Amino acid sequence: MGDLTLTTFDWVPEPPRGYVRDIRVRWALEEAGLPYHVATVPFGERTAAHFTHQPFGQVPWLTDGDISIFESGAILLHLGERSAALLPTDPPGRGTAIEWLFAALNSVEMASLPWSILRFSGADSDSPAWRLLDDFLMARLRHLEPVLAARDWLAGPFSVADILMADVLRLVDRFDGLAGYPACRSYLARATARPAFLKAHADQIAHFAAAD
Amino acid sequence: MGDLTLTTFDWVPEPPRGYVRDIRVRWALEEAGLPYHVATVPFGERTAAHFTHQPFGQVPWLTDGDISIFESGAILLHLGERSAALLPTDPPGRGTAIEWLFAALNSVEMASLPWSILRFSGADSDSPAWRLLDDFLMARLRHLEPVLAARDWLAGPFSVADILMADVLRLVDRFDGLAGYPACRSYLARATARPAFLKAHADQIAHFAAAD
Repeated sequence: MGDLTLTTFDWVPEPPRGYVRDIRVRWALEEAGLPYHVATVPFGERTAAHFTHQPFGQVPWLTDGDISIFESGAILLHLGERSAALLPTDPPGRGTAIEWLFAALNSVEMASLPWSILRFSGADSDSPAWRLLDDFLMARLRHLEPVLAARDWLAGPFSVADILMADVLRLVDRFDGLAGYPACRSYLARATARPAFLKAHADQIAHFAAAD
Repeated sequence: MGDLTLTTFDWVPEPPRGYVRDIRVRWALEEAGLPYHVATVPFGERTAAHFTHQPFGQVPWLTDGDISIFESGAILLHLGERSAALLPTDPPGRGTAIEWLFAALNSVEMASLPWSILRFSGADSDSPAWRLLDDFLMARLRHLEPVLAARDWLAGPFSVADILMADVLRLVDRFDGLAGYPACRSYLARATARPAFLKAHADQIAHFAAAD
């Protein structure tokens, strides 16, 4: 395993602070106790070098020695291969963690992120478009609720699946979307009380505050 | 490796035929030349057994011997570990395929699926909500375009990343969202001309037609 460097923006405006996706990587690295460096790219002007590492001009990406990885899901899976604190090593546990890692991103976040975009914009809060997207998210949460009522963590022990699912739910909770889902809220409270999350969150806030 | 069984719905209405996500798994299995069985669950009434395999009440899931896997991304990654026709075996190629597999689902489909839901509903085609989601998708396609203009397949050889990206783009193309992106359209044409896609598509169409 090489030297780990996490690249994020040099600065972001106030609203996304604490929610920039580098927090997923910071959180995983803290859970695994892996030391890492932080590098930055300009938020204001995306360079050609930036697109070489992250083709959509987003953050984060992680370099592990001479390997460069983008997509928070791919990064967490990569780190999971290196730490049993992130991904169970027994095949059934590992398989369960990986399917829930995808579920967080492709079943829940695919519904929650567009919902959050509309919430954040304040646009059309009572339009047919809004209701369609609200129904889409609520259907996902309704099915997630009994799963989270029945277990502490998605794959048995805490894993990268929980980092992603909890981070996805954080943004829903920010706009009060978990009000009808007490098991989702308890799960989120459990996840965000972990020392590794608290450290990662404080570090991200401090990183952007230092650039003001 | 155990016996492979793909579970999908027994029937769906006309509009989603050819687009039900079991096609991703069928396509991968055809590319790899892996034999498989098809099992069904009722579309009309989702049973408790269904939720045991797929907690959101969706399809597909795949059983491989006594392992049951949901989420198309997790299923394709699982199959990729078993066939070099689906996932390169050299670590850099494998890493690239995995990051693009996540990009298809969490950068492109996260923008395209809500866009398709609104397109399909016909709701609000000129509302602020619609414009926000259209901007979200077009920003992704604008960055994907130079990537696909510069290479035939995302990770060098054809891989599971291309199955997911092409299937995601198919639904955008269905609602004419690729009109301004010629490299995306060429890539999609290249992918869907593959014999494995044609077989998978014909099999899905025949499967649902047989239930009418």
